[in-house]
Amino acid sequence: MSSNRPVFFISDSTGITAETLGHSLLSHFDRTQFTETILSFIDTEQKARNAIDRVAKAARESGLQPIIIETIIDPKIRAIVHDSDAHTVDIISTFLGPLEQLLGQASNIRIGRPEVSANYGHYQRRMDAMQFALENDDGRRLHHYDKADIILVGVSRSGKTPTSIFLALQANVYAANYPLTDDDFEEARMPKALEPYRNKLYGLSIDPKRLNQIRDGRKADSDYASLRQCEDEVRMAEALFRRFGIPFIDTTRLSIEEISTRIIVDKGLRDRIRTVN
Amino acid sequence: MSSNRPVFFISDSTGITAETLGHSLLSHFDRTQFTETILSFIDTEQKARNAIDRVAKAARESGLQPIIIETIIDPKIRAIVHDSDAHTVDIISTFLGPLEQLLGQASNIRIGRPEVSANYGHYQRRMDAMQFALENDDGRRLHHYDKADIILVGVSRSGKTPTSIFLALQANVYAANYPLTDDDFEEARMPKALEPYRNKLYGLSIDPKRLNQIRDGRKADSDYASLRQCEDEVRMAEALFRRFGIPFIDTTRLSIEEISTRIIVDKGLRDRIRTVN
Repeated sequence: MSSNRPVFFISDSTGITAETLGHSLLSHFDRTQFTETILSFIDTEQKARNAIDRVAKAARESGLQPIIIETIIDPKIRAIVHDSDAHTVDIISTFLGPLEQLLGQASNIRIGRPEVSANYGHYQRRMDAMQFALENDDGRRLHHYDKADIILVGVSRSGKTPTSIFLALQANVYAANYPLTDDDFEEARMPKALEPYRNKLYGLSIDPKRLNQIRDGRKADSDYASLRQCEDEVRMAEALFRRFGIPFIDTTRLSIEEISTRIIVDKGLRDRIRTVN
Repeated sequence: MSSNRPVFFISDSTGITAETLGHSLLSHFDRTQFTETILSFIDTEQKARNAIDRVAKAARESGLQPIIIETIIDPKIRAIVHDSDAHTVDIISTFLGPLEQLLGQASNIRIGRPEVSANYGHYQRRMDAMQFALENDDGRRLHHYDKADIILVGVSRSGKTPTSIFLALQANVYAANYPLTDDDFEEARMPKALEPYRNKLYGLSIDPKRLNQIRDGRKADSDYASLRQCEDEVRMAEALFRRFGIPFIDTTRLSIEEISTRIIVDKGLRDRIRTVN
């Protein structure tokens, strides 16, 4: 059937690390040649044996040597996974041994999730930041601007909400939104609600054609979605950003991760966050 | 001043891969011994030289050999970063060479972001899934349950919203919410709106003490936040889950990534998603 090469991301926890690194590696090749499977919570020897059976089956069916990208911590379970004919990318032990030598410390081998238990305060701040993003979505609660680390400014559907949520998840940033509307464009001055917070503002812009597509997917054939309207709004938004020296970014060809990271870097939010932690 | 060991995550893109893997590695040691810095978008030789100057400065100030965890793709830029006295974890070239050999293909070395350009459809589905989560937050639009991959059921503040957003970001899952209220508990039957979608239901439970803390942070000293009320609601919610055979998870000690991944695994959502891709 498929002659795709099987790739397995295997982890004793969520598999997010294995998948993130794996995608980063595989993105250097033609991804269509791979069939990817994530095996999460492989945390017993029996589950490891079952996993390896799946890998062997995929090898037989594809006629190709599979790739395993794994982040298993327990040495016994890892040994079972390594006892296959797959090409194995073993992230933990490749780098952990040299780090142990450098630090002169044995690593604390334990299965599971260091993140929440070891750093509950950090985790709680992340959830609080996400909650903040949700509650301050599209300027519903302007009076929380004082608590925001950053206020994203842009026209409807320019990506403010996903960006604010990702800023929370990625870096605990408290992000609020301000949606630009015709009222803002008619007056030739800074929106009043934003006036006290000039230093927190960051603009999101977007290619009008792309905006037209997005809006059309929501309210087809409306004035709101028309290319003409999108062109007008984006032009006026960028004019406003320039007039008041608000830094802004064209989000059209960027992933949510890139938009979020660029804002963090531009506004120096990273250092502040690290200090808080 | 600080005698913490400096750790630098250096990337020509967002640095998310370097940071994810780096945290996974460092979590095996006492994290308080490290001072972490993320340097994103190090995509020119000049920026690489500046980065290395920062590393050298940190080495002098701490008196400790720094650790660099990097995912730089351009060989010239990577060479500059490697030309430091730091202990360097070089993720890409450690694993990319062997993969090239296995596949008999040169990797496609290019700087930047393969994800959006190479796979726009995938990216768009992810944003659509996130939008779906936001619009279906707390049962505001019940009529979209038919389009949902999963419906999260739980009492107020049990984590439905963050989980649904993370399900979207992690795996393009369309997640809707159904908030359990007193009305649901008074009747001894399945909530009517959920009746047609029994197979899509997944319950979120939580330790009443933890729920009490969370609610108290929002409406202090209210009946809503009282421990008594939290205990009653959680007990009735779990009774409802059991009566109707709804799978559920105790979220109290789990990170958002773990909750999301366990739901994906339990409900077999991963396979469905992979097939769609």
